Amino acid sequence: MRTVTKETITAAFLAYCGDDTNPRLRFILEKLAHHLHDFARETGLTHAEWRKGLELLQKTGEITTPERNEYVLMSDVLGLSSLVDMINSPDIGTPSSVLGPFHILGAPDLPVGGDMRQDNDGAAVIVSGYVRTPQGTPIKGAEIEIWQTADNGLYSNQDEQQPEYNLRAHMVVGEDGLYRFSTVRPAPYTVPDDGPVGELLHATGRHPWRPSHLHFIITAPGYRTLVTEVFPSDDPYLDEDAVFGVRERLIMNYVEQTSLDARPDGLDIADRLTVPFFTVDFDFVLAEE
Amino acid sequence: MRTVTKETITAAFLAYCGDDTNPRLRFILEKLAHHLHDFARETGLTHAEWRKGLELLQKTGEITTPERNEYVLMSDVLGLSSLVDMINSPDIGTPSSVLGPFHILGAPDLPVGGDMRQDNDGAAVIVSGYVRTPQGTPIKGAEIEIWQTADNGLYSNQDEQQPEYNLRAHMVVGEDGLYRFSTVRPAPYTVPDDGPVGELLHATGRHPWRPSHLHFIITAPGYRTLVTEVFPSDDPYLDEDAVFGVRERLIMNYVEQTSLDARPDGLDIADRLTVPFFTVDFDFVLAEE
Repeated sequence: MRTVTKETITAAFLAYCGDDTNPRLRFILEKLAHHLHDFARETGLTHAEWRKGLELLQKTGEITTPERNEYVLMSDVLGLSSLVDMINSPDIGTPSSVLGPFHILGAPDLPVGGDMRQDNDGAAVIVSGYVRTPQGTPIKGAEIEIWQTADNGLYSNQDEQQPEYNLRAHMVVGEDGLYRFSTVRPAPYTVPDDGPVGELLHATGRHPWRPSHLHFIITAPGYRTLVTEVFPSDDPYLDEDAVFGVRERLIMNYVEQTSLDARPDGLDIADRLTVPFFTVDFDFVLAEE
Repeated sequence: MRTVTKETITAAFLAYCGDDTNPRLRFILEKLAHHLHDFARETGLTHAEWRKGLELLQKTGEITTPERNEYVLMSDVLGLSSLVDMINSPDIGTPSSVLGPFHILGAPDLPVGGDMRQDNDGAAVIVSGYVRTPQGTPIKGAEIEIWQTADNGLYSNQDEQQPEYNLRAHMVVGEDGLYRFSTVRPAPYTVPDDGPVGELLHATGRHPWRPSHLHFIITAPGYRTLVTEVFPSDDPYLDEDAVFGVRERLIMNYVEQTSLDARPDGLDIADRLTVPFFTVDFDFVLAEE
């Protein structure tokens, strides 16, 4: 393309793509070139800004380890991760939200009504609900993975003081679709802000806080797997989640209970519970595959 | 933003930017979020494709060293580097083109008419021209840096067989604005294609070749610095430069000379030149600052 200009370079790029190129890859690259080139044209990007952008990508790579993926975090704070979640979330059923980097495989089994709180500090919370279809039918045998931060805002794999699978569980619901467990109230926490992502947050006057939340993955044969998070309605960061994970339909209430009569049925922790404690009710609605 | 949706997330991102944000940074981030989010929305980007993209960025970082910047190369083959060049190139004067990764500081001084060829293999070429204003006035004292590949397609800093500053020179033009040197014809070469950039090229049926070229940086007080490349009109890769560096106004002719009478004046190499040799005429026109 000896006649390449600011205006024709996008077409020149597309013309380079061979006929054998995978059609989906070609479509993605077409959109990528279109938006990348328009971004440069519309901003009048200077050489210095271009270099700064490439340096930011390079520094993002330098801080990335198997335990800390700064590229994912960059995608998170730019809203891309949440957008991809929303794009791929079915319109019916409970919305999905970001998986995050703290999920680990192999969480221990917990029966319905079991206690995930163990020796953890923090307010006792009983979380209950049904796994059901959009029509309200219980989904028998659905499997739930649960994980959350301790009272100090850290997940077990961030904190050497916690047992390996602290505040993590795997539960199978019964005939009625009910899930229920006792735990502690999770805490808000900050995403790592000592790297390139932090540089971006600081330069734009943004804080690194996420509202507290409970993570869930729910699977059942014949239904779309749901990866989501559930947020309390009174969290101070609900309207300013650094990674854009909050959805209106993922907000629940911590209801303070001052009488032991309010204990739900079938709790392992029933005899050890003291007032006040909190109850949370949240149903998960799975879309068919 | 508890009401964030696929449609509102771009506005939510912008609303996070504090009032104290540098206005230029805010403008760039606004355009970045707009195009990044539109890219995801228009492609219906899946989680698997999103992960693949982040992995590509991560692999680009893993192969990057002080000697090989794969991010720059990725920007090159996506057309971004050339586009940034064109955006920042003044409309008048000789067009700029990509600097590339092979420029090094400290090239030896060569007088006008000096010999850069030395012991290099390859066809002898005499390159001449004027550094001048758009009105044709010579720019006395303009400084020129020149670098190019040897006959094997490698730059001196890629090839241990070549002396450190082989085929590199720094020249100051005199009163008449004339520059002139003898050299060898540079060779086409491939950009590195054994990393993530190569993966992209192979997946889209693209080759990694660049047409042969001479690199120049031209500076003069009161004028915009010109970073450019000059390409031969008969190069087989002229219409398919892997990094989009060719501009119509950067094409010159190698004219074959079969008589020593065609030697330009004032050549160090005059007595050692044999026929056939080539002459190239190319003027550099600098825009005022």
